[in-house]
Amino acid sequence: DPKLKIFALNSNKPLAEKIAEAVGVKLGKTSVDRFSDGEIRINIEESIRGDEVYIIQSTSAPVNDNLMELLIMVDALRRASASTINIVIPYYGYARQDRKARSREPITAKLVANMIERAGATRIIALDLHAAQIQGFFDIPLDHLMGAPLLADHFIERGLDKDVVVVSPDHGGVTRARKLAEFLKAPIAIIDKRRPKANVAEVMNIIGEVKGKRCIMIDDMIDTAGTITLGAQALMDAGATEVYASCTHPVLSGPAIERIQNSPIKELIVTDSINLPDEKRIDKIKQISVGPLIGEAIRLIHENKPVSPLFNNRFS
Amino acid sequence: DPKLKIFALNSNKPLAEKIAEAVGVKLGKTSVDRFSDGEIRINIEESIRGDEVYIIQSTSAPVNDNLMELLIMVDALRRASASTINIVIPYYGYARQDRKARSREPITAKLVANMIERAGATRIIALDLHAAQIQGFFDIPLDHLMGAPLLADHFIERGLDKDVVVVSPDHGGVTRARKLAEFLKAPIAIIDKRRPKANVAEVMNIIGEVKGKRCIMIDDMIDTAGTITLGAQALMDAGATEVYASCTHPVLSGPAIERIQNSPIKELIVTDSINLPDEKRIDKIKQISVGPLIGEAIRLIHENKPVSPLFNNRFS
Ligand SMILES: Nc1ncnc2c1ncn2[C@@H]1O[C@H](COP(=O)(O)O)[C@@H](O)[C@H]1O
Ligand SMILES: Nc1ncnc2c1ncn2[C@@H]1O[C@H](COP(=O)(O)O)[C@@H](O)[C@H]1O
Repeated sequence: DPKLKIFALNSNKPLAEKIAEAVGVKLGKTSVDRFSDGEIRINIEESIRGDEVYIIQSTSAPVNDNLMELLIMVDALRRASASTINIVIPYYGYARQDRKARSREPITAKLVANMIERAGATRIIALDLHAAQIQGFFDIPLDHLMGAPLLADHFIERGLDKDVVVVSPDHGGVTRARKLAEFLKAPIAIIDKRRPKANVAEVMNIIGEVKGKRCIMIDDMIDTAGTITLGAQALMDAGATEVYASCTHPVLSGPAIERIQNSPIKELIVTDSINLPDEKRIDKIKQISVGPLIGEAIRLIHENKPVSPLFNNRFS
Repeated sequence: DPKLKIFALNSNKPLAEKIAEAVGVKLGKTSVDRFSDGEIRINIEESIRGDEVYIIQSTSAPVNDNLMELLIMVDALRRASASTINIVIPYYGYARQDRKARSREPITAKLVANMIERAGATRIIALDLHAAQIQGFFDIPLDHLMGAPLLADHFIERGLDKDVVVVSPDHGGVTRARKLAEFLKAPIAIIDKRRPKANVAEVMNIIGEVKGKRCIMIDDMIDTAGTITLGAQALMDAGATEVYASCTHPVLSGPAIERIQNSPIKELIVTDSINLPDEKRIDKIKQISVGPLIGEAIRLIHENKPVSPLFNNRFS
C-alpha cells in the first residue's frame, strides 16, 4: 500500500497543519526557501518513493511565487518517484482570468491548469473555484469542495439563521446565494447594480424583501471589498436590521480592510483558504477553518471512496 | 508576408528598445501591470493576427514574476492568432538548477522549458546558457548566441589584449575561457579551488603563468561574486599586474557589489542581458549592449538565414 504523505509549501502552513491533524499524519519534512538571487530552492528531506503525496498550497499573493513553489515541488516529487501527486489548492489564483472578456486577453486560469498538469500533478483538490468551468481546464481528476456548508453551520450554530435573507452582491452570484439559502432555509435577495445612463453613478437596486430582516451577503471571494461594502450600505438603506457578510476566499487587497472597517457590515465570516497576515486580522473578520473538510476529503480519496457526501452530510 | 513585431515585457525594457532599434521597428503597444491583488494583467493594444512576434524578457529577479509575465504573454499571443511566437530570453533564470545534484532535487531549468513550450512558444533565442545542454531541454528551435565575441571586441578596442592571460575562475569554466582566449590570441590559466582536507580553508591554486601579466577573468554569470573576487585576490598574490573581470550575466545578488568594490578587480565588464538597478551601477562596472547582436539575430531569423555567422564574423 502506498504511504500517504502531506507536504506544506509556504503560502498557508497553519491550514496545512490543520489538514494533517485532521488526516492524522505529520507534515512531511521539506524546506522551501530562496537562493541569494531569489530563485526558489526546494529540499525534500525524506524519501517519498512510491508514496501517495499531497501538497497543500494556495496560489494567493504573492501569486507568482506561490505558483512557482508549487510547480517546482511537483517537478521534484515526480523525479523522486512519488506514486501519485495530489495538489490541494484551497485558493486558486488567477481564477478570474477564466475567459477572454476582451480581444487579446490571456486565459491565465487555463494557463495555470496547463502548467500544473505539465509539471506532473495527478489530481487536484480545489475549493469554491471562481467559476465551476475551471474544472474543465484540467484533464486530470479534480475534486471540487464547497465552503457554503461550513459557513451555513457557523450561522446556524450562532442562531443567526432566524428571520434572515441571503443576499447575492451581484447577479453573477445568485447560484451561490441560493445554495447558502437552502442550507439556512431562508429566502434570497439580489443586489442589481445598474448605471441608468452613461456617466451617471450606479444605483443599487435591491430585488427581494430585506426590510426588517437580518441580511447575510455571500460571495466566493472578497478582493478590494468595493461591491460588498456598497451592497451592505444599500441593504441598510433599504431597512435591513443588520448585515453580515461571508465568503470562502478572503483576498482582501488594497483598500479592503479600511472599507470593511468603515462599512455597516457587522461581521465578515471567511475561511482560512488564504492565510491572513496580522494586519488583516481585525475584530470584524472571523475565520473558520476548512482544515477538517479538506482532511476528510483526503481520507476519502485515500480510501477510494466518493467525496460527494461532504457536500451535504451536514444537513440530512 | 507575416509582419515582424517586437514586444517588451517588464524585466529589461532598455535592452528591448535597443533590439527594436537594431531591427528597425518600433516596440509593439502593450501594457503589462498588476491587479490590486498582485495578479499580472496583460493588455496587447494592437492586432497581431498572423504576425511574426518576438517577446523580449529576461527571467532575472524577480524571477517568478518575470517568468509568469512571459508565460501569460505567450498565452495571450497564441489565443490572438500570432503566426509565430519567438521568445528572446537574454538571461535564463533557474539555469543552475539543470540537473539533480542531490536526491529529490527539482530540475527547474527543464520545468521552465516545459512551461514555455506548453504555453505555446515556437522558438527560443538565448544567450550564454549556463549549460549548453539546456538547449536539449527544448523541443522547439533554439538559437544560442554568445557574449564572448562582444567582450573580446571590447578588450581589443581598448588595447587590453596585449600581454594578457584569460583566466577561468573555476575548472567548470575552462571552455568559456578558452573561447575568449582564442578571440584575444592569448594563453589561459585556471584557478583550481581545493580543500586540502575537511574543515580546512580552501586554497586557490593557479594553473598557468600569470606573473607580470594582465589577467582577464571570465564567467557566464556573476551572482554573489565570491568566486570571482577571491580569484582576483589570488591572481594579484601570484604577481598579476592587474585583474579585469567579465561575464555575460550580471546577476549581482546579496553581497556582490560590496565584494567587487572591495576587491582588487580593476573593472568588471558585463552585458545588459540583465537590467541593472541604479544601486548596482557603480564606476567599476561597465555594461556593453547585446542589443545589436540580438537585433541582428532576429533579422537573420526573419529572413530565414543561418544565425551561426554571428559567432565569428567579428574575427575573420
Ligand atoms: N486579479 C484580478 N483582480 C481584478 N480583476 C480581475 C483579476 N483577474 C481578472 N480580473 C478581471 O475580472 C473579470 C472577471 O471577473 P468576474 O466577472 O467576477 O468573473 C475579467 O474581466 C478580468 O479581466
Ligand atoms: N539561484 C541559485 N543560486 C545559487 N546556487 C544555485 C542556484 N540555483 C541552483 N543552484 C545550485 O548551484 C549548483 C549548480 O551550479 P553549477 O555547478 O555552477 O552549475 C546546483 O547544485 C544548485 O543546487
